[in-house]
Amino acid sequence: MANEHIVKSFDQELEALRRTIVQMGGLAESQLELAIQAVVRRDADLAGRVMRSDEQMDAYENAVDAAVVQILALRQPFAGDLREVVSALRIASDLERIGDYAANIAKRSLALAQVPVVRPVTTLPRMGRMVQQIIKDVLDAYTERDLDKALAAWRQDESVDDLYTSLFRETLTYMMEDPRNITPCTHLLFIAKNIERIGDHATNIAELIHFQLTGKPVKDARPKGDSTSFTVVTPEAKPEDNA
Amino acid sequence: MANEHIVKSFDQELEALRRTIVQMGGLAESQLELAIQAVVRRDADLAGRVMRSDEQMDAYENAVDAAVVQILALRQPFAGDLREVVSALRIASDLERIGDYAANIAKRSLALAQVPVVRPVTTLPRMGRMVQQIIKDVLDAYTERDLDKALAAWRQDESVDDLYTSLFRETLTYMMEDPRNITPCTHLLFIAKNIERIGDHATNIAELIHFQLTGKPVKDARPKGDSTSFTVVTPEAKPEDNA
Repeated sequence: MANEHIVKSFDQELEALRRTIVQMGGLAESQLELAIQAVVRRDADLAGRVMRSDEQMDAYENAVDAAVVQILALRQPFAGDLREVVSALRIASDLERIGDYAANIAKRSLALAQVPVVRPVTTLPRMGRMVQQIIKDVLDAYTERDLDKALAAWRQDESVDDLYTSLFRETLTYMMEDPRNITPCTHLLFIAKNIERIGDHATNIAELIHFQLTGKPVKDARPKGDSTSFTVVTPEAKPEDNA
Repeated sequence: MANEHIVKSFDQELEALRRTIVQMGGLAESQLELAIQAVVRRDADLAGRVMRSDEQMDAYENAVDAAVVQILALRQPFAGDLREVVSALRIASDLERIGDYAANIAKRSLALAQVPVVRPVTTLPRMGRMVQQIIKDVLDAYTERDLDKALAAWRQDESVDDLYTSLFRETLTYMMEDPRNITPCTHLLFIAKNIERIGDHATNIAELIHFQLTGKPVKDARPKGDSTSFTVVTPEAKPEDNA
């Protein structure tokens, strides 16, 4: 009887841990959405809200850390349970980073709102929606313990990288056309990079779910499409070259 | 006797874990140094070396992960030991990210080598040396379990952020002076951002050492000096304004 009680209570602890992860994930997703809206609508109030919710994210992460350490110390889980608990620590850390990047996007929206609108702003929401979908799918995969869903989400990251690369080139040409575009375009480049990084962290979570469910790392090489580190755009290049 | 054997072997496992962390840290430090040399000397071979050593970093991280899961499962550590083992997982993850950023700096050096030299390149090594010093101090603090050293390293990050902010403004003005500077300066901005992020991860490690040694998070607010997200530079601004 006492033993049953312990077992049941361990399940409850795991369940509480999962719930916190899912709450963190929901917050991360909405932070990204609102941050991009703050950029597009030049809405400083919205930006402030995203920047403030970063504290909530930190609180969630601390709660996960504490719960994991407690479970490890008192429950001494093994095999799948141990992998789940260790993965939770990592997933929380990825979600917290996603929140940080969203807060940084919100911050940059304040600088962007002080200068004229530049065209690449219209591509950002598309990139944002792609990444939001990955976060959503990864969270579903986590909740449903669905390996195929996790791998499908993992593969989507390549399209994000492609879009980022073309946005990068396009933005550079705008900077070359008019020096007044340089400040807004620089912030846009960093915003786009932040969204791309958020995609990477979501992909990371998919890999952690794979490890949690199978005990093995994802076999295929991680999709890596961001080639902008190699990109050189010369002032003669036209935006049409970037298709 | 059997019990003593088990205790001794656990110590050996912890010792091996620490050694791997220190090796990772040494590699991270040298990757950063070589990556910046690759930028300054326009040395593609060196860049290639840094990019390749990223695999070694991943291998180290996998070794740490496996060792941690094994220790948790078989040794069921508690209190300080448990904190050390869980921190090792996190420290390895921060060091692996530092390696990623160094590899990205090396990649960008290849793009930079194709275009004329721009002046802010000379500030980068200074920023790099500051961050290298933080990594070195943090690793010393880890090896010596020295709380004061960890906190001292943690505080240094603010100067890195200040230097990054002034480099950011300076680079933007160079972009405005001549459109041919835009591509190299964009890569420089991302390189500087990478160095700044490396500093953040080193700071993270200092926080983890604090947690490991005391069981408590660092109380003071984390030093956060990167204000470039708010920065607007107009084409009229002169480099002299950025001092």
